[in-house]
Amino acid sequence: MSETGRSGSERVVVIGGDAGGMAAVSQIRKGRPHDEVVVLERGRWTSYAACGIPFYVGGELGDDISSLVARSPEAHRRSGIDLRTSSEATAIDLASRRVEVRDLETDRAYQLDFDRLLIGTGGRPMRPPLPGIDLEMVQGAHTLDDAQRLAQLAGAGGLRVVVVGSGFIGIEMAEALTRREVPTVVLERLDQPLAILDPDLAERVAAAIRAGGIDLRTGAEVVGFEPGAVLTADGAVAADLVILGIGTAPNSDLAHAAGLELGVRGAIRVDDHQRTSADGVYAAGDCTETVHLVTGERVHVPLGTYANKQARVAGINLGGGDARFPGVLGTAITRFGELEISRTGASSDEAARAGFDAVTITVDANTRAHYYPGAAPITVRLLAERGTGRVLGAQILGGPGAGKRIDTCAVAITARWTLQDLLDADLAYAPPFSPVWDPVAIAAREGLKLV
Amino acid sequence: MSETGRSGSERVVVIGGDAGGMAAVSQIRKGRPHDEVVVLERGRWTSYAACGIPFYVGGELGDDISSLVARSPEAHRRSGIDLRTSSEATAIDLASRRVEVRDLETDRAYQLDFDRLLIGTGGRPMRPPLPGIDLEMVQGAHTLDDAQRLAQLAGAGGLRVVVVGSGFIGIEMAEALTRREVPTVVLERLDQPLAILDPDLAERVAAAIRAGGIDLRTGAEVVGFEPGAVLTADGAVAADLVILGIGTAPNSDLAHAAGLELGVRGAIRVDDHQRTSADGVYAAGDCTETVHLVTGERVHVPLGTYANKQARVAGINLGGGDARFPGVLGTAITRFGELEISRTGASSDEAARAGFDAVTITVDANTRAHYYPGAAPITVRLLAERGTGRVLGAQILGGPGAGKRIDTCAVAITARWTLQDLLDADLAYAPPFSPVWDPVAIAAREGLKLV
Repeated sequence: MSETGRSGSERVVVIGGDAGGMAAVSQIRKGRPHDEVVVLERGRWTSYAACGIPFYVGGELGDDISSLVARSPEAHRRSGIDLRTSSEATAIDLASRRVEVRDLETDRAYQLDFDRLLIGTGGRPMRPPLPGIDLEMVQGAHTLDDAQRLAQLAGAGGLRVVVVGSGFIGIEMAEALTRREVPTVVLERLDQPLAILDPDLAERVAAAIRAGGIDLRTGAEVVGFEPGAVLTADGAVAADLVILGIGTAPNSDLAHAAGLELGVRGAIRVDDHQRTSADGVYAAGDCTETVHLVTGERVHVPLGTYANKQARVAGINLGGGDARFPGVLGTAITRFGELEISRTGASSDEAARAGFDAVTITVDANTRAHYYPGAAPITVRLLAERGTGRVLGAQILGGPGAGKRIDTCAVAITARWTLQDLLDADLAYAPPFSPVWDPVAIAAREGLKLV
Repeated sequence: MSETGRSGSERVVVIGGDAGGMAAVSQIRKGRPHDEVVVLERGRWTSYAACGIPFYVGGELGDDISSLVARSPEAHRRSGIDLRTSSEATAIDLASRRVEVRDLETDRAYQLDFDRLLIGTGGRPMRPPLPGIDLEMVQGAHTLDDAQRLAQLAGAGGLRVVVVGSGFIGIEMAEALTRREVPTVVLERLDQPLAILDPDLAERVAAAIRAGGIDLRTGAEVVGFEPGAVLTADGAVAADLVILGIGTAPNSDLAHAAGLELGVRGAIRVDDHQRTSADGVYAAGDCTETVHLVTGERVHVPLGTYANKQARVAGINLGGGDARFPGVLGTAITRFGELEISRTGASSDEAARAGFDAVTITVDANTRAHYYPGAAPITVRLLAERGTGRVLGAQILGGPGAGKRIDTCAVAITARWTLQDLLDADLAYAPPFSPVWDPVAIAAREGLKLV
């Protein structure tokens, strides 16, 4: 028995009700108000902010997890959306244009016809196929349910935690646990944390992480898990809880099974309109691939900003409009204690792999005029193409006010600016905010001597 | 009796030894190491940061004013520069290529031949020709000597101060005095403070200024000064000290007397290489005009960043290189208490005067994720050209972390971006730094509905 659409209108089915999915719905309804929109959300929440999870676990946001929910399912329903929580899409039949749905509360299965479809199935923590990976103590930190469980465990005390992986989420989780005074070991396979930074800058972050009381071990390959221990090539590390922070894999199984084309790292292939390989079927967010604006390569970069923007683009197009998501720079920011860390564009490695002859510029300056109270050190790294001076990437480490300066670089890189353009930019100066030459401008100025 | 150059080399004379002048010297020496460089500085300091004066007066920088001096005259001399402090250039003879100099300590006058010349005579507080303007109680806040005198007066207590004018310097001075618990009245001729903001946003700043304990009176035209009082159309305001904050006039008398062409507001006319109308004579900084990158108009915008960059450009050119200063956006930033205030590009008024049909976009958002501690309100205003969506200007008010976001807009405006480009920009997001849509992106997104 299959639900079919109302006569005279079309039905759009949206799989995934997080912030991105619900943003898409709002665009679809704006563009085609008479269409029927059905949202299928596997979990109990909608419009939630997964990026806030480490801060919730760290106790910074108080006890009420609903602060991470921008809009509740009830609120969405009141505005007239057919929103079905605890409802998992288990199969997509492209030929008959039908989604198979399982109601996880009643275990009832049913089919739902669609005219157009948006797949926003998101991502999941990467789970390497190691012995013991399925032990209950090995957890992700991707859902609000994860967050509640982890916060409860961390608050109870007496726990020994191992975080596997030291990307932004791994570091944020480790810091969160340290705030709760939970002894935490971070195991990183590579020689550096934060692989999206150049090694020498990552080394500085590593020093700050260790000074912050976290036992960060680089070059530590995890080979398996046992109750009470993480096994590495160098021996066992005691653990009551293991948090996977080695990255996010695209949830593309459903799309793959339906016959949709996949791309890099198994993410759903989409064009710049968020169209998949099937007519009338769109995808957005962590389950999809996109394009890197500097290297031109197809990439899978699961970030909340992209999910929201791509969902908006997909929603506009599903609503009959014409919108485009041009690609990404991999801009990212976090902080460890007082140290702000940000990056955009190509790293040295990425630039080299993409065939650029890149010059590396590094300057140490202050966040404010040197004489103004609270001036903190800031390091700006720029990568620029030798000869042309085109800016390819930027990385920033520094005290309060340092990190968001990366946006200046992100805009400059997108505009294909050279170091000279960046030096000429009219950046804001007053002693409480910047030296008279902004650190980014200083880096551009020094870079001109090198390219 | 005139000093002539060493044989086999040329002599460059630099008039003005503040940070800009000395930056130029370093470029000249780099480009033409065998040239002789003589710097004439009227005051006792070199490489000083006049922008720090309000913060020094407010007691934020401690008692030692030398913190505002990046490099002392002695340090410059040790590096081999013929630096003459207390030395005023009193005339320039372009025909015989000679500067007349007065040594203010010995009162000796002499002449100095030059092959090439850089004029960096800076600016001075505007002094309207009102009765009593020359009373000793009417002071500027432009030099380090001013700063020391004002700090001493403010520290002594029992003073009633009137600040005339409510531009950035006027507001910063008033806040500084309030920090010292000096009762302060600000008199502003216009209906709003901070004329470089749109009126409605300026009104919000006015409310904050008044809530901060400053008696800000708009629409208050000063008609004269008497010992103990400032006279306005609405009566006398008691004052033991009057600080002029109505703007900076170019110090171009010397250049004008020499026959150099002047431009807007009496500033020295220069081209994009900082060349004046006379061969081999350059000028830079507050004494010169420049070009506004949005309106295309010639403007006089006396800011420390421009002075430094223009001086660098002049220095490179004087050293035989080829550098260019492309123009400005009038980017500015300040803070009043916790409120950060910034702007760039054209204001609504400026856009209208330049003939643009501009749409005004205003959004209220948060500096951080709404659930993250310390999230503060931020208002972003964008001006965009109707039809094309080209971004023409931006203004930002908000809590900590708000102000420097103006740099994102400044780069976008310089790159002639549209609202769509700005929306597409890959700006950094993490809950402690931004909502998932950065407030600037939100403004761009909302603006797209209006243009």
